Amino acid sequence: MTAAEGEIVAGSRLLERAQTEVVEATDRLFDQLLPIPDDPRDRLYEAMRHAAIGGGKRLRPLLVRAAGDLYHVDRTPTLRVGAAVEAMHVYSLIHDDLPCMDDDDLRRGKPTVHRAYDEATAVLAGDSLHALAFEWLVDPATHADPFVRSELIRELAHAAGPAGMAGGQMMDLAAETAQFDLPTVTRLQQLKTGALIAFSVEAGAILARIPAEGRTPLRGYARDIGLAFQIADDIMDVEGDEQLADKALHKDEAAGKATFVTLMGLDRAREQARALVDQAITHLAGFGDEAALLRAIARYIVERDH
Amino acid sequence: MTAAEGEIVAGSRLLERAQTEVVEATDRLFDQLLPIPDDPRDRLYEAMRHAAIGGGKRLRPLLVRAAGDLYHVDRTPTLRVGAAVEAMHVYSLIHDDLPCMDDDDLRRGKPTVHRAYDEATAVLAGDSLHALAFEWLVDPATHADPFVRSELIRELAHAAGPAGMAGGQMMDLAAETAQFDLPTVTRLQQLKTGALIAFSVEAGAILARIPAEGRTPLRGYARDIGLAFQIADDIMDVEGDEQLADKALHKDEAAGKATFVTLMGLDRAREQARALVDQAITHLAGFGDEAALLRAIARYIVERDH
Repeated sequence: MTAAEGEIVAGSRLLERAQTEVVEATDRLFDQLLPIPDDPRDRLYEAMRHAAIGGGKRLRPLLVRAAGDLYHVDRTPTLRVGAAVEAMHVYSLIHDDLPCMDDDDLRRGKPTVHRAYDEATAVLAGDSLHALAFEWLVDPATHADPFVRSELIRELAHAAGPAGMAGGQMMDLAAETAQFDLPTVTRLQQLKTGALIAFSVEAGAILARIPAEGRTPLRGYARDIGLAFQIADDIMDVEGDEQLADKALHKDEAAGKATFVTLMGLDRAREQARALVDQAITHLAGFGDEAALLRAIARYIVERDH
Repeated sequence: MTAAEGEIVAGSRLLERAQTEVVEATDRLFDQLLPIPDDPRDRLYEAMRHAAIGGGKRLRPLLVRAAGDLYHVDRTPTLRVGAAVEAMHVYSLIHDDLPCMDDDDLRRGKPTVHRAYDEATAVLAGDSLHALAFEWLVDPATHADPFVRSELIRELAHAAGPAGMAGGQMMDLAAETAQFDLPTVTRLQQLKTGALIAFSVEAGAILARIPAEGRTPLRGYARDIGLAFQIADDIMDVEGDEQLADKALHKDEAAGKATFVTLMGLDRAREQARALVDQAITHLAGFGDEAALLRAIARYIVERDH
């Protein structure tokens, strides 16, 4: 085994350990933060718990923790920020799965919220997690300094709204009728999934009070892995295993939507994803061992099978 | 005309002037804050503008301004906070009007967003305004001190989420099948509409850095007018003029829902609303002329015909 191969094996073990910890800790935190009330809102909380607890790779909380590790940020704040960004992600999944959007029945191996409950409850469970993401983030338990909390809120609100995730989802709907070219699909994905991934990475630095100018390498890393993640997703949508994915595949194909695969072909898409991962790792050159987890996540993003 | 009658006439003129100003300024601000982008998200912004600009009594922005007046807060921050809380209110109207919720065709004299555009766009326009409310609030233009901005975010997130507006809407859905008693209907309305009204009033004091202990009279005022507002709404639902209301009426009746009117009868409901307004004004006894607008708003709430 070469030194480079050794680093990859060590990184993948580190990733596995960290991911197991983050998955368990995120579930525990959601369990604490979403207690079922003894009143007619119980169904709303049950629906939120159904969507938020159990399942999911927790990529975004893992990224917050990995970026926090760069600056030796305490684990509690990274976990809280991770739960906030995951709540935001889960809300978007609930709304994207609605009959008027992608009309999906299965998510993370379970019935989608509108199938397990009903559409109105799904809309409200998404809306509730959206508001809670901000409520959890702004709580002094996240960070003692209100300036840091304000920075987190500012970045998350921007990443979630029409200039980010919601705007990307709108472009995705338009993609069903318009034929988008590569720059437009790239922009769509940067908004739809890239913005929240970028927030997750940057949040680690914000918690460590790194000013905006000092976050440039992390921004580059986040942009590259975000795009690589989406290209890998498009590849899996074509050749993935529905059992492993725990969600419906081959949907873009059926909808006739332009994806990285339809625009570039499978081989070039695979090459491009790998090149982006290499480039993402290059952005971390200024960091030492404390960036091992971020490097391992970048590699995992194109190697995962679901 | 007695002195008391004179005060009421002067108050109603003051209210008319302030409301005209707030309505115009809020429309102008929304117009600036929601520029239509030259990309496939244009439809999303058009839908937000359709819902947010033009129409509405702007009660919440008016309350922020009236409460800010108590402490001589600058107009610009109260207007920005007003736009944020109104965006939150508008998002809730868009989602509440959806076919899976109240299934309404008309709102503020215009087709609802899902009728003018489509359901998916309506979901995303609501989600986008929800995120923007926080983004506008956390902007340093709202207040230079991040502690003040954090306080505003904390209160708004709590008021909007499952412990506030979204939770109240969930109770409202449950009310279609369960028979709620008066305390439960009161709680429902305190969450569904009361929480955002309370935020609007308290925001004026937060902008003036009044600590939580000092906001007790304002909280009492807000609780009372919030409840009076809802009782008045229930009365209008029974005997209002659909032309003036610019929205569908007699819906609770048709749905067989318990309301203040079905639980108390029209006469007692009217008395109760008036008593709450008197009590709301009593909470302001410690303030002088600077509370004139808040007093006028309290009276207007039960006297409006739409």
